[in-house]
Amino acid sequence: MSTGFFEGIEKVVYEGPDSTNPMAYRHYNPDEIVMGKRMEEHLRFAVAWWHTFAWEGQDPFGGQTFVRPWHPQDDMERAKLKADVAFELFDILGVPYFCWHDADIRPEQGSFAENLRTLNEITDYIGEKMEAGGPDLLWGTANMFSHRRWMGGASTNPDPDVFAFAAATVKSCMDATHKLGGQNYVLWGGREGYETLLNTDLGAELDHMGRFLNMVVDYKHKIGFKGTILVEPKPQEPSKHQYDFDAATCIGFLRKYGLENEVKLNLEQGHAILAGHSFEHEIAVAAAEGMLGSIDMNRNDYQSGWDTDQFPNNTPEVALAYYHILKSGGFASGGTNFDAKVRRQSIDPADLVAAHVGGMDICARGFKAAAAMLEDGGLETALKERYAGWESAEAQAMLGSDLGSIAQRVLDDNVNPEPRSGRQEILENYVNRFV
Amino acid sequence: MSTGFFEGIEKVVYEGPDSTNPMAYRHYNPDEIVMGKRMEEHLRFAVAWWHTFAWEGQDPFGGQTFVRPWHPQDDMERAKLKADVAFELFDILGVPYFCWHDADIRPEQGSFAENLRTLNEITDYIGEKMEAGGPDLLWGTANMFSHRRWMGGASTNPDPDVFAFAAATVKSCMDATHKLGGQNYVLWGGREGYETLLNTDLGAELDHMGRFLNMVVDYKHKIGFKGTILVEPKPQEPSKHQYDFDAATCIGFLRKYGLENEVKLNLEQGHAILAGHSFEHEIAVAAAEGMLGSIDMNRNDYQSGWDTDQFPNNTPEVALAYYHILKSGGFASGGTNFDAKVRRQSIDPADLVAAHVGGMDICARGFKAAAAMLEDGGLETALKERYAGWESAEAQAMLGSDLGSIAQRVLDDNVNPEPRSGRQEILENYVNRFV
Amino acid sequence: MSTGFFEGIEKVVYEGPDSTNPMAYRHYNPDEIVMGKRMEEHLRFAVAWWHTFAWEGQDPFGGQTFVRPWHPQDDMERAKLKADVAFELFDILGVPYFCWHDADIRPEQGSFAENLRTLNEITDYIGEKMEAGGPDLLWGTANMFSHRRWMGGASTNPDPDVFAFAAATVKSCMDATHKLGGQNYVLWGGREGYETLLNTDLGAELDHMGRFLNMVVDYKHKIGFKGTILVEPKPQEPSKHQYDFDAATCIGFLRKYGLENEVKLNLEQGHAILAGHSFEHEIAVAAAEGMLGSIDMNRNDYQSGWDTDQFPNNTPEVALAYYHILKSGGFASGGTNFDAKVRRQSIDPADLVAAHVGGMDICARGFKAAAAMLEDGGLETALKERYAGWESAEAQAMLGSDLGSIAQRVLDDNVNPEPRSGRQEILENYVNRFV
Amino acid sequence: MSTGFFEGIEKVVYEGPDSTNPMAYRHYNPDEIVMGKRMEEHLRFAVAWWHTFAWEGQDPFGGQTFVRPWHPQDDMERAKLKADVAFELFDILGVPYFCWHDADIRPEQGSFAENLRTLNEITDYIGEKMEAGGPDLLWGTANMFSHRRWMGGASTNPDPDVFAFAAATVKSCMDATHKLGGQNYVLWGGREGYETLLNTDLGAELDHMGRFLNMVVDYKHKIGFKGTILVEPKPQEPSKHQYDFDAATCIGFLRKYGLENEVKLNLEQGHAILAGHSFEHEIAVAAAEGMLGSIDMNRNDYQSGWDTDQFPNNTPEVALAYYHILKSGGFASGGTNFDAKVRRQSIDPADLVAAHVGGMDICARGFKAAAAMLEDGGLETALKERYAGWESAEAQAMLGSDLGSIAQRVLDDNVNPEPRSGRQEILENYVNRFV
Ligand SMILES: [Co+2]
Ligand SMILES: [Co+2]
Ligand SMILES: [Co+2]
Ligand SMILES: [Co+2]
Ligand SMILES: [Co+2]
Ligand SMILES: [Co+2]
Ligand SMILES: [Co+2]
Ligand SMILES: [Co+2]
Repeated sequence: MSTGFFEGIEKVVYEGPDSTNPMAYRHYNPDEIVMGKRMEEHLRFAVAWWHTFAWEGQDPFGGQTFVRPWHPQDDMERAKLKADVAFELFDILGVPYFCWHDADIRPEQGSFAENLRTLNEITDYIGEKMEAGGPDLLWGTANMFSHRRWMGGASTNPDPDVFAFAAATVKSCMDATHKLGGQNYVLWGGREGYETLLNTDLGAELDHMGRFLNMVVDYKHKIGFKGTILVEPKPQEPSKHQYDFDAATCIGFLRKYGLENEVKLNLEQGHAILAGHSFEHEIAVAAAEGMLGSIDMNRNDYQSGWDTDQFPNNTPEVALAYYHILKSGGFASGGTNFDAKVRRQSIDPADLVAAHVGGMDICARGFKAAAAMLEDGGLETALKERYAGWESAEAQAMLGSDLGSIAQRVLDDNVNPEPRSGRQEILENYVNRFV
Repeated sequence: MSTGFFEGIEKVVYEGPDSTNPMAYRHYNPDEIVMGKRMEEHLRFAVAWWHTFAWEGQDPFGGQTFVRPWHPQDDMERAKLKADVAFELFDILGVPYFCWHDADIRPEQGSFAENLRTLNEITDYIGEKMEAGGPDLLWGTANMFSHRRWMGGASTNPDPDVFAFAAATVKSCMDATHKLGGQNYVLWGGREGYETLLNTDLGAELDHMGRFLNMVVDYKHKIGFKGTILVEPKPQEPSKHQYDFDAATCIGFLRKYGLENEVKLNLEQGHAILAGHSFEHEIAVAAAEGMLGSIDMNRNDYQSGWDTDQFPNNTPEVALAYYHILKSGGFASGGTNFDAKVRRQSIDPADLVAAHVGGMDICARGFKAAAAMLEDGGLETALKERYAGWESAEAQAMLGSDLGSIAQRVLDDNVNPEPRSGRQEILENYVNRFV
Repeated sequence: MSTGFFEGIEKVVYEGPDSTNPMAYRHYNPDEIVMGKRMEEHLRFAVAWWHTFAWEGQDPFGGQTFVRPWHPQDDMERAKLKADVAFELFDILGVPYFCWHDADIRPEQGSFAENLRTLNEITDYIGEKMEAGGPDLLWGTANMFSHRRWMGGASTNPDPDVFAFAAATVKSCMDATHKLGGQNYVLWGGREGYETLLNTDLGAELDHMGRFLNMVVDYKHKIGFKGTILVEPKPQEPSKHQYDFDAATCIGFLRKYGLENEVKLNLEQGHAILAGHSFEHEIAVAAAEGMLGSIDMNRNDYQSGWDTDQFPNNTPEVALAYYHILKSGGFASGGTNFDAKVRRQSIDPADLVAAHVGGMDICARGFKAAAAMLEDGGLETALKERYAGWESAEAQAMLGSDLGSIAQRVLDDNVNPEPRSGRQEILENYVNRFV
Repeated sequence: MSTGFFEGIEKVVYEGPDSTNPMAYRHYNPDEIVMGKRMEEHLRFAVAWWHTFAWEGQDPFGGQTFVRPWHPQDDMERAKLKADVAFELFDILGVPYFCWHDADIRPEQGSFAENLRTLNEITDYIGEKMEAGGPDLLWGTANMFSHRRWMGGASTNPDPDVFAFAAATVKSCMDATHKLGGQNYVLWGGREGYETLLNTDLGAELDHMGRFLNMVVDYKHKIGFKGTILVEPKPQEPSKHQYDFDAATCIGFLRKYGLENEVKLNLEQGHAILAGHSFEHEIAVAAAEGMLGSIDMNRNDYQSGWDTDQFPNNTPEVALAYYHILKSGGFASGGTNFDAKVRRQSIDPADLVAAHVGGMDICARGFKAAAAMLEDGGLETALKERYAGWESAEAQAMLGSDLGSIAQRVLDDNVNPEPRSGRQEILENYVNRFV
């Protein structure tokens, strides 16, 4: 009944921090109660179909390194085998969610009609496996960047027929996501951006993208999909410039096109870094606007200028991300997805399992540290003290007044504020008590 | 009558491209008519008081390298001498505009009352020199980042008294700008940002900044200032994160706080680069929103990670910037400011003059190339062809329809678009015919 | 007789700077004499087989965009068709040189014996075309990074069998290069580096690489190959860290392993940028050591963190590169190779031609500017003046003395040097007279 | 007797990991035995005079933020007060070492004779404090970058008189270091590099720098100084290009000028990052050459492009650095210096103390994790297994053979190696058991 792909690898269980078993959780204990809720329900881990099952190890300088029984990926039987293996991994890990692009799960990209037929078939197959006790769907999405038809963009393509193909594709993926009870639907820009401004009508392309996203939202309501529509910022790669550059850019875009109450953000650590931000910055920006939706918890390498999509391995970084997530109320429909690939030299099935085990464990450890910090309250107290001046009636009244009145008061009272320490190192030391 | 500072340096004149005189313009001919207007009126060059006259050559690893007769800069007599020298440089260069921060022109930062008194006195003195035939004021601005009171921000400071001091300061600088007939008033973020999120209430700070900018706009209208209010994006430095990260972030901020029709952008090449953008990108983003105000035409070094503020020296880059400016209609109240400093080893008065001559000449050359490209029309024709599909009634109707209808059409018509070449290299070659 | 691939495209000829023909040279006039030599002999242009003929348009987010009659590239007949098309492009462009990796020209990578057989067959075929009037071979090289066997490195692989396979492969490519009269043989690091130090014995790997390169040099002498052995620095990509990080690192490596008189450098603009250097820096470093061999004149995009390998399009940058090349005596066995690919959206045969035409023209224009600067002598004069103090006998004597004596003289003479201007902007303006 | 500067702050003691006292060590227990040696003797912490006592909080956009009783720093009495405060901090922290530049400790830079006189006086004063029970001197160095005389470099200056002044200065600092029993003498490049190649004779400057360093080594032997001469790599800032770019560049330089057995490296985490490397990379490179001397354990901010010199706060990063240090045998004369400054907003004396406490604690924690990993041996075992093939006699024989023989064997034996997993994620997970 088993495919045998993960032969010899047992279901991963929690053994506690002292375990030296490389295939055990040392920190992720799904049933442990943290801040009143099970860890599994807090973290809401998801495995991504594309990197883990569909990617064959290519990079710009080399071809396939992984040799899998479901290769080549152009046949429905092998697509089903791949799905079987996927659910075996989900079971080994005990993850509650998974995610896919249409192109990850169905065998091949041809005409739209063919894509639709195979998508429906494979999602029925996946649906059966879900009903048989598999995990739930965190989100679905459409791959509108790999096939050559998308080379100049999807909704922003100079060719309206590509816009049409994109619309049809997203409809089909939303339908499939809805069918499978997905909790969110994600749009990542892919090639929505440009290689050179010389051939680009930036204003027109943004308008098309804004219109497209409005159609997506309308369609969500039409079909009664209750999940959240998410967009995923990324500053560059594959395009030289991606329109969804970072959280602030996306939020400005959503507001311009009247979508600020309909769409939230799926934030990725690696994309934050590529955009020149820390991950917690992107989370804090989205949270301040009430637009934090979900996260892709995969890091980039600080010495590489491209999207390396590695599993997280740095507890202090992960802890700060979860701190801002918890502070804003935690995940609603979102979760912790690993948009992460094992390195192309990690060719063994055991590498696939271990990478997820390690990533989940780092997240669990960081999450618990974040919860402990929030419960201790040290950072919030420090923040409250630092901004205490703004709580006075006078300060609030000043915000409601005008430059002239304030200037007069400054002159009259000889206002001459003395700086106070920002205490950065003391706060960093505080964090290090927990991580 | 002359200060003698620029002794031996004559007024710089246009001598044409074949001149080998290092102190002549080879491309900047103020009276030459390009696209129906004098070059001077197109380019609207401005000299910046701070880098050119107030900066003493310090960097993080070393102190003053420039030894000037107006040092130390703590005395009104020497502030007037500095102004005298400034107007001598304006005259030598024949520039139509200049810019200042309050802290550049008045002798010293003490109490607000003292700042106000010296600001009024020195701007009266400058006003007399303007009336005596000097150039006009492109913009004024307030330095709210150098004095230690601003170390934690101005309008975003945790201390409401600093907000008050900032409000009073901006009022005084707007008054002085108005008095001198300034064409714009600029706010650059300075320390409006954070060093660490650990001590920062990002949402509250952004709200304070939004409220502050609304006060600025209200005050503009109250005093009848007809100039444009501009904000200047910069992603980092001095702060780790600056709230006005880039054009898209600023536009989103302006829209959130209801300022999109009141405030425009002052864009700087170096800041574009620090944010991971080309300069023409930032200009195109602002132009697409109708928010292009003015530019600081100073480059960063591509191998340095900080704001080097060098004079422009690369014609092809400058040409693409002016192409997008011209395409959006050219400058209204804005102009071409050099927020540029000579290198700290360039300690001679001749270096100050030559740097501006070279910068203006590169701009003039790039500008003429841009105008020629626009008149030739090759890029616009290529753009029109590439997006021609969108001009059809069907394409426009599709934009007004919905995912379901479009998907049905894709199925019915078996829409399967064939990609067309983006022709990037051909367009780059085209540009190289002009630059 | 023609393959028809470039149907409708004529041989590219020089038409002068005023030409508006996009398929004409405006600056590259092969027979024009510059500094006493024909431009063709100065610039020594080469077309690279890999990007131009073998790359199919893939990137990390998408597959093939180019559809060529020689696809799929797994068959000797189609490999010959590819060679036919290549020589048609060489003829259209009038280039004097070309370059290849083994994997570009032969159909497929299987066993070493099979690789060897097809390499010999295709290089015989290419040799016939060369004898029939085609261009010469600037250099050959071995692709030891694309096939999965190389995923952990070639000469630095943890598996000695991969070292052996690499040795055999390089031998076969050196033999083929020698057979075709190649002027150089190049080794680019590919995956000689690491993804993580956790699994890497850096010292051992460097020793193996040093030993390997010594074998290459020995073999060159053994077979009487008179060309130059070149290594090509690159800091990262595909590996996180490449051992041949930059020129200085390579030179240190060569000196450590006793190869400083046997091996020179092939420098690429894009790799310089990835390493945090300007291209002229890398050239100047190599020239100062007498190790400048050849160049890959392809740029990266300053806003992208990966190796974009674009055709050069910025004259001022190219001019500074050729200035340092000319200053060091110009190319001996080396030349100007375009390790450049058209963008993956540039899918037409015309794009391939136009990209090379534009690149060659930018190089010719930059080269002529460099020659004019060198003939004018302005920079050399400025340099001589700046360092004039070192020409005195006292200064030279000081270099031969010791700290104690010098300190005594400083005390005795109260040496207290006054700084002199570095005149950077004046020199930049000077350059802009020529570019 | 106390200056009162740190009033209210007690001597910092070890309280263990559960302590919540922000002014206690939670991990640094100087007397704890790790791998057979006291932690204090392993880590050899040093406080840096410059950032901690001499820096006044300036950055490129603002002036002094710190207000200290020893300001302005132009007077011997205040220099002695600064020294008093320094030794009070050393005592509070219990550090075994400190470091200085001449310009940090003496009052002012004037003529060389004056500098020498004040240097001698203040080092006598410091020497008395050392004899009275203060910590030892880890290293001394000369500040040859802050005063305007150094703006064009020290030993690489175009003016030989500056070379002379540099020689005299280094002699005086070596004498003072020797007098105080310093364990090392450091040279950091400062402005040994260039702003623009246009005005730079790179080859000549490198020769001068090589000659200078040879003089330093000669002088060391002449005076019988037993400490180690160290150079500190940094890629950029203040100069656009620093000659001592990174470890590999420095090692190449040392070898070229015959200094590879006389000089070692002082590596800084922040400089590694600026050069595009991880810190452990730089350490591994130096260790592989036997040239690892000492470290500056201060990080840069990954989102800032300049040298932020922050106290370390990321245990996993620090652990990997110490892992490579321990693996290469640990420190001999070197140690762990904090070339780190509190943020300019951290204006309280308590910030100075807390920053060091936190930095030392992170180092201690990372160090203990490194020691545990080394004792466990997991990484070394994995490495041994991965390279096991090279231990065979055949593999070693192959290294001694030649391309032709190897190629023959590949053909004869049909060598066709199968790749093996690099196991990166498994190794990363392993590390996370310890950090
Ligand atoms: Co990613
Ligand atoms: Co993602
Ligand atoms: Co700037
Ligand atoms: Co600016
Ligand atoms: Co490249
Ligand atoms: Co190359
Ligand atoms: Co540093
Ligand atoms: Co340091």
